Amino acid sequence: MTETLASTSREAAAALDSADPLAPFRDRFVIDDAVAYFDANSLGRLPAGTPARLERVVRGEWGRELVRGWDHWLALPLEVGDRLAPLLGASTGEVALADSTTVNFYRLLVGALDARRERRAIVTDRPNFPTDRYVIEGLAAARGLEIRWLEPDPIEGPTLADVAAVLDRDVAVVTLSHVNYRSAAIADLASITAAAHDVGALVVWDLSHAAGSIPVGLDENDVDLAVGCTYKYLNGGPGAPAFLFVAARLQAELRQPIWGWFGQRDQFAMGRGYDPPPDIRRFLVGTPGILGLAAADEGIRLSVEAGIDAIRAKGIALTEYAIALHDAWLAPRGTTLGSPRDPSRRGSHVAIRHPQARGLTAAMIASGVIPDFREPDSIRIGLSPLTTSFEEAWRGLSVLRELLESG
Amino acid sequence: MTETLASTSREAAAALDSADPLAPFRDRFVIDDAVAYFDANSLGRLPAGTPARLERVVRGEWGRELVRGWDHWLALPLEVGDRLAPLLGASTGEVALADSTTVNFYRLLVGALDARRERRAIVTDRPNFPTDRYVIEGLAAARGLEIRWLEPDPIEGPTLADVAAVLDRDVAVVTLSHVNYRSAAIADLASITAAAHDVGALVVWDLSHAAGSIPVGLDENDVDLAVGCTYKYLNGGPGAPAFLFVAARLQAELRQPIWGWFGQRDQFAMGRGYDPPPDIRRFLVGTPGILGLAAADEGIRLSVEAGIDAIRAKGIALTEYAIALHDAWLAPRGTTLGSPRDPSRRGSHVAIRHPQARGLTAAMIASGVIPDFREPDSIRIGLSPLTTSFEEAWRGLSVLRELLESG
Repeated sequence: MTETLASTSREAAAALDSADPLAPFRDRFVIDDAVAYFDANSLGRLPAGTPARLERVVRGEWGRELVRGWDHWLALPLEVGDRLAPLLGASTGEVALADSTTVNFYRLLVGALDARRERRAIVTDRPNFPTDRYVIEGLAAARGLEIRWLEPDPIEGPTLADVAAVLDRDVAVVTLSHVNYRSAAIADLASITAAAHDVGALVVWDLSHAAGSIPVGLDENDVDLAVGCTYKYLNGGPGAPAFLFVAARLQAELRQPIWGWFGQRDQFAMGRGYDPPPDIRRFLVGTPGILGLAAADEGIRLSVEAGIDAIRAKGIALTEYAIALHDAWLAPRGTTLGSPRDPSRRGSHVAIRHPQARGLTAAMIASGVIPDFREPDSIRIGLSPLTTSFEEAWRGLSVLRELLESG
Repeated sequence: MTETLASTSREAAAALDSADPLAPFRDRFVIDDAVAYFDANSLGRLPAGTPARLERVVRGEWGRELVRGWDHWLALPLEVGDRLAPLLGASTGEVALADSTTVNFYRLLVGALDARRERRAIVTDRPNFPTDRYVIEGLAAARGLEIRWLEPDPIEGPTLADVAAVLDRDVAVVTLSHVNYRSAAIADLASITAAAHDVGALVVWDLSHAAGSIPVGLDENDVDLAVGCTYKYLNGGPGAPAFLFVAARLQAELRQPIWGWFGQRDQFAMGRGYDPPPDIRRFLVGTPGILGLAAADEGIRLSVEAGIDAIRAKGIALTEYAIALHDAWLAPRGTTLGSPRDPSRRGSHVAIRHPQARGLTAAMIASGVIPDFREPDSIRIGLSPLTTSFEEAWRGLSVLRELLESG
């Protein structure tokens, strides 16, 4: 495989596809072969089974069962959470689908801060995803907390040493993205979590670019709290409901700040006094969106079926291949790599940097190749293990090569 | 009409349907005539156009446009909010669809409390919807605030006098449901809002059972803040996204606590420092669920087309009719009315009380009549102006009569 990965011929790409055990999954999605799609890490492709599932939910359940649909819809947030759990290395009863990533991040971060009330600092990094940074800023302002901003290498991401340098017993929470949205750098979740615990802090991991692309090992690594979205590698659809993870050992102890009727012990008694059950249900809030949940479930099922180890192996192969093409075709024409070269430190996308990245992205899109531009100078090439073929990577990067050649 | 309303014959019901200007709207929904549906105030029926709209969004937009769909999806929360605004008596730029009712209620209540930081009390009523009460309890606990619980007449709901009795300059916020979820009592939004303003307090109205069933007059009545759901009378589908209203005059001044990237001035610059625009966009948080939004839009369009005045007129006629049948058929067999008799004080459902309400509700459902049971003793008969016919009301209440007769 290493030799094939180093070849830039279209035939080599086809050979890689032939040898790819996940190749059959591409047929389980709606795919327009005229497009090279490098943005499934922003919005994953449409699973072929999703329209029929939605038709069943809309006409069969909403249309016919009417309000009686809630007899089974009520269970969906935890049912789909349990389905997702193995992809994250979590256990049954530790994951729920609910709300947006931002709302969940806020809720769990408040829960963590409340559990460490006597401490005054939050640790995160400047290259973290904007919505995480804004939520942290809002809570720090509201509660008079200090934010300890890490300034890691923008390509390699935050290291254990970066984090360890600011840890002390005044740190309430360490919160980072497992995979950085721009560079794809993987933060060392295991060692950073352990270091945070060593000073008595809690961790909140944002898994948005990790879920369904790399193993996370939440339980194995003793993670406290995590959130993430299901519309990227999990192919749940535009604005699909997010997930949250709360380690079983913390569920009875932690609270979240939005006391809603879906977090109430006997919801339909509609009784006096909020009294949340001592389990994952206390992290639910309001009425879940059933259409979005059903679509998320369809996407998640496909990733579960493929298995995270096979997904990870293909993600590494795809990104190694894209980097080989980058080095052979693009670097000589002025690009640099904006992602770690060590595959063990890189998620399933590759950032290609160029001073004209914004214009190049627009020109690629005009040519049927869809990457994403990320400030200030990155073309983000998302390579989604279930839906991106090597031939597609070859085709899309060929277009970028031609654009660079023609200036 | 008054005479016809007082007749209990099936022919009279048919005559009422023939004279009903909104009767044609029933054909715009998927309706199983074997069922009498009295719970459209919990989950509204499926609009006939919604499956096709979802098919377009799923296959046409998500499937084909992929991430480029965000070019138009991004506008949807405010676009659909503007569409909904006239039903609430609000103006363009004052309403957004987002999150769940509970999350929105929390966010706006925090915004209001932050704007009245020096005050220590929240006013609400014991019969308020549970999720509102729980959110209030959570915030009162977190911020050390006093809750002034009104104990109004359980059928007639909170009056101006009830509210005025506890108002003083320590009250930060008065928050009530416009239409009570159990009794359908309408709170006097205009006078209560004015009284709250007289002591310098802000109001947050929960419009869940009012939106699309009665005129609200948000701007006319100088309302500050409001939330509500779109899956009841607005027929948006199970767990459809909720709405929030912020009066234009308050938008630059108020903040909400969850600082997310959808509330950021130049969202995709992904820059440092949260900097929300001085308008309704600052009340957005995370990525909106597009499937749910599209379905909500379809439902809302139908109510807008019908117009709130025609909807209100039919709602009064339906509930007057149901009460006439109740008085003729049911009261002699042991029920009492759990809703106000004055139609100007009653929303679009009717509560029928009976000691065996729970068992009767189950027996009705087994007979194809779907009401809702509400603790401790109410059978809630929802009469949705766009989708409930007089014949359907006749048929459903006949079943209840037969059940009471047979003991």
